Amino acid sequence: MQELTASVLLMGGAADAADVRYATGFTAPDPFLFFDDGRQRILLVSLLEYGRAVECAPHCRVMLAKDLPISKSEQRRLSGCAYGLMKFVQRTSVCVAPQFPIAVVRRLEKKDIRVKVLSDNVYPQRAIKTTKEIKQIAQTQRAAAAAVQAAARHLRLCKVNRAGDVYYRGRKLTSEDLRQVIEIELLRHNCNPGDTIVASGPASANPHERGQGPIRAGTPIILDVFPADKSTGYFGDITRTLVKGRAPDALRQMMQAVYAAQQFALRAIRAGIALATPHKKVVEFFNQRGFKTEFCDGVARGFIHGLGHGVGLEIHEAPALSGRSTGRLRAGHVVTVEPGLYDPQIGGVRFEDTVAVTATGWRHLASCHVPWEV
Amino acid sequence: MQELTASVLLMGGAADAADVRYATGFTAPDPFLFFDDGRQRILLVSLLEYGRAVECAPHCRVMLAKDLPISKSEQRRLSGCAYGLMKFVQRTSVCVAPQFPIAVVRRLEKKDIRVKVLSDNVYPQRAIKTTKEIKQIAQTQRAAAAAVQAAARHLRLCKVNRAGDVYYRGRKLTSEDLRQVIEIELLRHNCNPGDTIVASGPASANPHERGQGPIRAGTPIILDVFPADKSTGYFGDITRTLVKGRAPDALRQMMQAVYAAQQFALRAIRAGIALATPHKKVVEFFNQRGFKTEFCDGVARGFIHGLGHGVGLEIHEAPALSGRSTGRLRAGHVVTVEPGLYDPQIGGVRFEDTVAVTATGWRHLASCHVPWEV
Repeated sequence: MQELTASVLLMGGAADAADVRYATGFTAPDPFLFFDDGRQRILLVSLLEYGRAVECAPHCRVMLAKDLPISKSEQRRLSGCAYGLMKFVQRTSVCVAPQFPIAVVRRLEKKDIRVKVLSDNVYPQRAIKTTKEIKQIAQTQRAAAAAVQAAARHLRLCKVNRAGDVYYRGRKLTSEDLRQVIEIELLRHNCNPGDTIVASGPASANPHERGQGPIRAGTPIILDVFPADKSTGYFGDITRTLVKGRAPDALRQMMQAVYAAQQFALRAIRAGIALATPHKKVVEFFNQRGFKTEFCDGVARGFIHGLGHGVGLEIHEAPALSGRSTGRLRAGHVVTVEPGLYDPQIGGVRFEDTVAVTATGWRHLASCHVPWEV
Repeated sequence: MQELTASVLLMGGAADAADVRYATGFTAPDPFLFFDDGRQRILLVSLLEYGRAVECAPHCRVMLAKDLPISKSEQRRLSGCAYGLMKFVQRTSVCVAPQFPIAVVRRLEKKDIRVKVLSDNVYPQRAIKTTKEIKQIAQTQRAAAAAVQAAARHLRLCKVNRAGDVYYRGRKLTSEDLRQVIEIELLRHNCNPGDTIVASGPASANPHERGQGPIRAGTPIILDVFPADKSTGYFGDITRTLVKGRAPDALRQMMQAVYAAQQFALRAIRAGIALATPHKKVVEFFNQRGFKTEFCDGVARGFIHGLGHGVGLEIHEAPALSGRSTGRLRAGHVVTVEPGLYDPQIGGVRFEDTVAVTATGWRHLASCHVPWEV
């Protein structure tokens, strides 16, 4: 499964956590080292992690700093251990990922180890999901869909007064309340919630605004839910935009345009097409409908992010579906398709689903039907 | 507040996320750049983050790649932007943190920018918490304590059959169930749960084992709860070890020893003492009571981790309280005090509290009384 591009040294529990988990099944909260040359695989961990590493990664050799042919003072530092590991495997050169920590590289170079920075991914086939991985992502995606539906049910139970304030059982409904409903549902599905977005009103025009304070009727409520399964580590990612009460005309037009753009983009998704194509088509689609993307007077407006990204052991991983992406979609890619429109006066609208690419098209990993107006 | 050691370039949303959040108040899910020379502070973010960055960090200049004096192709890569930022501020040298990504450094060096790796922390005073920060950590710590107490209440409602199986309302109680109780309580307190440890039986002998499957009576149940407040980002950290039913003698002795060790360690905590002292005292304490720390036949046993660590915008940050730590405790340090004993046959026992160091001692950030035997 984990075909290798070169002999690599990775920093688990930190910069290269997802790659190490992919290759070994093991992860830990603090930094540790992993060496892989396609034949031997070595995890270098602290005493604190030793037992768990041996259990999780039976096909790896698990070592402690004290096993390395270096001085005691070098054993105490991760950069010293990295050198010890190179000495142990008798290498004078090694590859690292772009995000590998500079201090460890400097230490290796001082000891005359040549360090090459990989330009490609360490395990390029991580982007091509196996049937098992797709099942695991689908499982998380179903949890995310259930959480969005729980939020929609909660919103349905709310009442609106004449001033447009939204109440749940006599108390003003806030983004925080709705986020709690979503995240409790995620916990019930054995998922870590992450930083769920429940952004409403004009603030939702910032795509990564998490959202806070009272929710008002007639404004967009963006629910962007991207949990990771606690056992497998695989993410899911889904976004719906709801409105409590009726959407004003301008907002409804945005919602119709974004929904149509998502359907339009999905029709372009299949193995073999250029990664940049769906994004470019959506930009054109929005332009034709009069939704221009622009940045003026310090304010961004329109379709201001990429169309999608890969999902797996990281929430954002290869392949990116942006206008600048190179390469082609392949069967087994799992990507989000998430057009959005943002207007500083009205707020944001985004619809997002995560799909598995196939030879002839794609398939949904979970369905999530909620009404636009609740 | 954020006195600086040098002109620095940081990678926000990734390697240096906590430092950037400390200095600017801003954080984001994807990598971005931050430059700080003590006079000018520049956040370089994507269009997607622009509005939020301007709002969160009013004392920073927020820039987009397109504002930098570099080619369009360089603007598309974070490493190109790092060079553009150096050109913009007219610097030919800059400092980075040890964990800064190698690929960006290589790019800067290719453009004749000299990159120095800091050996000290970027903002050393991050370890010394302000009154406001201590309040924020205490708030999270209270949430953690409430969650541990919720788990103890849940455990009290459970029944034990003759075989030692633990039942909640007719269903076998698992680590997963108890974790859910804890994490729902954390969400109710506006906290992100993280990877809560609910490890029971012999598996709890691995200090970072998260725990899974049925819980049995008469075995240790380690609850290690380390949430972060969703608004402030500050962590709390607390551990209790409980037993459903009666603890067998060997386990009770371990619990008594660990509890006594924690009290003993706390008596040593105050500004001015060497950081390594409390840990060394605890090692000696355990040795005198016959609990030796050893590693044989691939199995670790005894007191196999450091006594504590700093807590703040990261769950593990400066200062470390291990036998190898150098330097001294200072007023305003916020540290965990968490001795533990681990036995592969019996399991683990750990008691942990987070305290704020003062000139004359320390103060608890939250109390959490739960009985050992439930």
